[in-house]
Amino acid sequence: MSTKNYLMRIAYDGRDFYGYQYQVDRRTVQGEIEEVLEYIFKESIPSKASGRTDAGVHALDQVVGFRGPELMELSRLNYVFNRLLPQDIKVNKIYYADLHPRFDALGKTYLYKCSYEDELFLRPYSLIMKNKLDLAAMKKAAHYLQGQHDFYNFSNRRPGEGSTLRYLYEIKIKEEDKGFSVEFTGEGFLYKMVRIIMAYLIKVGQGKIDPRKTPEIMGQRDRKYTRSVAPAQGLFLKRVFYEKNELDKYFN
Amino acid sequence: MSTKNYLMRIAYDGRDFYGYQYQVDRRTVQGEIEEVLEYIFKESIPSKASGRTDAGVHALDQVVGFRGPELMELSRLNYVFNRLLPQDIKVNKIYYADLHPRFDALGKTYLYKCSYEDELFLRPYSLIMKNKLDLAAMKKAAHYLQGQHDFYNFSNRRPGEGSTLRYLYEIKIKEEDKGFSVEFTGEGFLYKMVRIIMAYLIKVGQGKIDPRKTPEIMGQRDRKYTRSVAPAQGLFLKRVFYEKNELDKYFN
Repeated sequence: MSTKNYLMRIAYDGRDFYGYQYQVDRRTVQGEIEEVLEYIFKESIPSKASGRTDAGVHALDQVVGFRGPELMELSRLNYVFNRLLPQDIKVNKIYYADLHPRFDALGKTYLYKCSYEDELFLRPYSLIMKNKLDLAAMKKAAHYLQGQHDFYNFSNRRPGEGSTLRYLYEIKIKEEDKGFSVEFTGEGFLYKMVRIIMAYLIKVGQGKIDPRKTPEIMGQRDRKYTRSVAPAQGLFLKRVFYEKNELDKYFN
Repeated sequence: MSTKNYLMRIAYDGRDFYGYQYQVDRRTVQGEIEEVLEYIFKESIPSKASGRTDAGVHALDQVVGFRGPELMELSRLNYVFNRLLPQDIKVNKIYYADLHPRFDALGKTYLYKCSYEDELFLRPYSLIMKNKLDLAAMKKAAHYLQGQHDFYNFSNRRPGEGSTLRYLYEIKIKEEDKGFSVEFTGEGFLYKMVRIIMAYLIKVGQGKIDPRKTPEIMGQRDRKYTRSVAPAQGLFLKRVFYEKNELDKYFN
């Protein structure tokens, strides 16, 4: 039997998971996937994802890779996966590809959904905001954050833990039906970076920080204005890019 | 302190509950509510609902009543409740009313949401159907089921457990965006009646039962065609009626 590099595009509802990454005795997305992998392939098979997501964070298109023998037709394997996985994980596509889910990713999009209405059924899927935010001010701050910058002040990294330089391609803030959404597309994100930027933008939208202070705050290394982390509710890993033209298309 | 009859209109996401009714060592809606009641009133306070809902069934407008001392302004009490309740229960309204949530109910509406698309985030809130159903045939069957009938064959009641005569005011079948919905409004429902009728209607929609057989099947007492119970996913307790004019308005 020849060994193959499998790639899966999966979605999950992060609500009832302690995050993506495997933990002993806790329900995690990786734990559920590897349990099914072992059941299907009759051997322990390690898997790799494009990155972890925190507890409560959802995924519309997470990418998971693993190596294993060629077992059955891919459409059949996709079906078997979905039969065996719990209701809150779904494999949307499975295919062979020689790439590393994390190292070969060219970019990622995260989406925050925000609602002005405290609708019970939206709660796990939306950041609930009591008062209207000043989206124009948030867009101004977002404008400064876009581009290649040192995001030390917008991450949980400590000095000496590696470069905090990242390319943030775009922050798209859009008014929606009963709220708004914020989409972050970047080359890569530091630990908690999306949630810290989101908390910062909210403060700007609440009038607590002048958006014009953003470049100055970006240059600092004290996290005075960037200590807060926005809740996981409402945050979705929306897409992982592996092809340059996919990214180009996205910006046109 | 004067004792009051409180009434609460609540919504809950049934997904992570073992149903409405209290059970030792299991997470139930009633269990969560009574825990908060005891915390607020500093005494054990029993509560009554308009009826139980099964595990996985949601509520948009369940009615819960209890007796307790007058403690604080009702808007404040509502706020305190929502601060203390878990994320998946919400009190929409709290007021004083001298009525019994179950015995004084004049009618109820249950809603089934059905989707032809297996969308991950819809799964707990929608019955997923693989193939299109014949809604016209289902409407024909529904037409026979409306009115006052002996629903013995459409319930889990056993002989001798009381009358199985019920008034089913209306079954409304509506095509929706990527699926359809079925609304049941009745004076009262027998145990599992909505889910058994739903399973029956689905069989009609799949062409497995001729809708014209419905009166005959209603007259039988063998459950040959009505053994199945539709899943709880997608089922919502939508409304409980206590006023005649509310019901009248509903039908106009």
